[in-house]
Amino acid sequence: MKNPAARFAVQSLGASRIREVANVGIGRADVLPFWFGEPDEVTPAFIRDAAKQALDAGDTFYTHNLGLPQLREAISHYLSALHGPIATERIAVTSSGVSALMLVSQLIVNPGDRVVAVTPLWPNLIEIPKILGAEMVQVPLQFGHTWELDMQRLLDALTPGTRAVYLNSPNNPTGWVITRAQQEVILAHCRRHGIWIMADDVYERLVYDTAGGQACAPSFLDLATPEDRIISANSFSKSWLMTGWRLGWLAAPAGMMADLGKLIEYNTSCAPGFVQRAGIVAVEHGAEIIAHSVTRYQTARDFLYERLNALPRILSPKPKGAMYLFFRVDGERDTLALCKQLVREAGLGLAPGSAFGPEGEGYVRWCFASSLERLDEGARRLARFLEDR
Amino acid sequence: MKNPAARFAVQSLGASRIREVANVGIGRADVLPFWFGEPDEVTPAFIRDAAKQALDAGDTFYTHNLGLPQLREAISHYLSALHGPIATERIAVTSSGVSALMLVSQLIVNPGDRVVAVTPLWPNLIEIPKILGAEMVQVPLQFGHTWELDMQRLLDALTPGTRAVYLNSPNNPTGWVITRAQQEVILAHCRRHGIWIMADDVYERLVYDTAGGQACAPSFLDLATPEDRIISANSFSKSWLMTGWRLGWLAAPAGMMADLGKLIEYNTSCAPGFVQRAGIVAVEHGAEIIAHSVTRYQTARDFLYERLNALPRILSPKPKGAMYLFFRVDGERDTLALCKQLVREAGLGLAPGSAFGPEGEGYVRWCFASSLERLDEGARRLARFLEDR
Repeated sequence: MKNPAARFAVQSLGASRIREVANVGIGRADVLPFWFGEPDEVTPAFIRDAAKQALDAGDTFYTHNLGLPQLREAISHYLSALHGPIATERIAVTSSGVSALMLVSQLIVNPGDRVVAVTPLWPNLIEIPKILGAEMVQVPLQFGHTWELDMQRLLDALTPGTRAVYLNSPNNPTGWVITRAQQEVILAHCRRHGIWIMADDVYERLVYDTAGGQACAPSFLDLATPEDRIISANSFSKSWLMTGWRLGWLAAPAGMMADLGKLIEYNTSCAPGFVQRAGIVAVEHGAEIIAHSVTRYQTARDFLYERLNALPRILSPKPKGAMYLFFRVDGERDTLALCKQLVREAGLGLAPGSAFGPEGEGYVRWCFASSLERLDEGARRLARFLEDR
Repeated sequence: MKNPAARFAVQSLGASRIREVANVGIGRADVLPFWFGEPDEVTPAFIRDAAKQALDAGDTFYTHNLGLPQLREAISHYLSALHGPIATERIAVTSSGVSALMLVSQLIVNPGDRVVAVTPLWPNLIEIPKILGAEMVQVPLQFGHTWELDMQRLLDALTPGTRAVYLNSPNNPTGWVITRAQQEVILAHCRRHGIWIMADDVYERLVYDTAGGQACAPSFLDLATPEDRIISANSFSKSWLMTGWRLGWLAAPAGMMADLGKLIEYNTSCAPGFVQRAGIVAVEHGAEIIAHSVTRYQTARDFLYERLNALPRILSPKPKGAMYLFFRVDGERDTLALCKQLVREAGLGLAPGSAFGPEGEGYVRWCFASSLERLDEGARRLARFLEDR
């Protein structure tokens, strides 16, 4: 039966092309999967213990819509150390980073609104405003030695009357990281025209070739006044190895919190209390996890970068952040077909670039949040596949 | 700062009047709260243990958008025993019952669509379609000895071109339970006009004065073919004392599952795996919890019903299901003010009827999922308050 009821926007939603590739590998234990954006390490024990203790203590009831006061405060302290003062009253806890993005979009996007996004981009950030009836305008990054933003092209797209610009930096899938100077130009332009900036900051702690420790990508939060039309969405998934926990947050102007609370009530009501308890421990005592991941992923990135660029037909820039190599396969016009073939014939699971917008076609995404042994075996499989072709 | 960006629909969202009353009691340990729809018992240990074991086993990664296959299968078995065969492929796991309602609305409601709801009703069921731009039409239940549905009035409201009817039975707040005969009439009418039936079935196991055990309220699932335009939303919250876990499900035509999977990806992606593991145990081994709750709540209902109706100016029908007494306070025109006064002056936390729509004004909701000792003390406080007035 075809769905006879699909909402106009749902009908036009693309099925996930990553999922389409992964489906080819179902039931095959020999496939090495690098297709999803997920670290391969279990959440550290001390974080899991906090959830278990909360369960033992009987923490199985509703919490406030905006989250446990203690967690909001912990996030406020954490963000303030990175970006300057962000008051607790500007923090809302959400049931995952993607829920945070859905909430922001419900809050600021009206049907017919013009929303600009810099692409290639994680498909959810394009599809969510579409579900709410937005008209999406995509400004592609330019591919050269690295991925670069054509600032004039972005400013031209941010016409008066534009509702919002959606930016994800460090970027999934390209690893592009916006500069402070670029942020200043965008902020000045958006202030002039009353355009909202929706910053997806979930990879802000995964930046490389820096001093480490408290290293963090440039954030609009560093520049914003508390009343600026800037909303930062974040997640526990990547910073603290908590993908499966579905916990995130928003930092927004305090004046929006009442409406955000209502929308959280109508979306998930709250995140589980015992999950939030684990979040408190992660935010307060998780600095070492971040340092461990950054060191591990930087080594993995460098290793895979060398290995891939040694192969014929492959050209990969070195990403400055996030956890993906987004590389060109020379002469490939249909990377969805290529990735399916890689699963079937080489036992290698990668994500087709076209999953991230038409600008991504010709590229392939490889998540390197993995061990060197697995990356090495993956690179071997890719090399063999390309030789045999 | 007033929110300068609110979506047209968000601006018109009412703040929760229940929350408004609860805020009066913040920081007061002496208030007896019966305002929220939440049982007062912790989730049973064997369910919490399942989550803890999953955490120990390292189950901290993403799951399928539609949920763990094992949980979908367990729900399919559970529902099939109650309602006749409901295939696993018709089940989607959601991050709470309210998320299930949001997903259904995103799936079937377009901006401008006419959606009919029977009221008084849990406010979320009115506000969610509004967020998506629906035009809501409310058909009020009639108050007499009990709450009754005026069928002709409902059918008149379900004009051709109506997109959906939202029904919640057993009903929050009134305890109204739809009859099989009424369901048959509504189903025939909706089939004729292609109108979707969205059944919020979260209280289906909380019905009283029945044989107990496998007792269940009449459900549209009993009557539906697999292709009927019927979606049933459900939750683990009330049946298995799992409010804080934020776990629910949808039973829908199989042809909608692909679109539902996409929408789940864009709303929360999945419920946490360790929460779903707890859900499996609850569904498979939770029959005794339901029996325990039904026995306990029936006793509580009868106790409170006697106590309240013995008071002057109070008239309460005896609800057939759910976990609320929704009673009239004679001569009260502003139950929001009354409920705030009750908190301040009597230390008693109840929910104003106007929180459930204009038809609810003049009534007050009391959640009786509580111990007799607490209900007794609450009734004493109410009696004293009414005497002193």
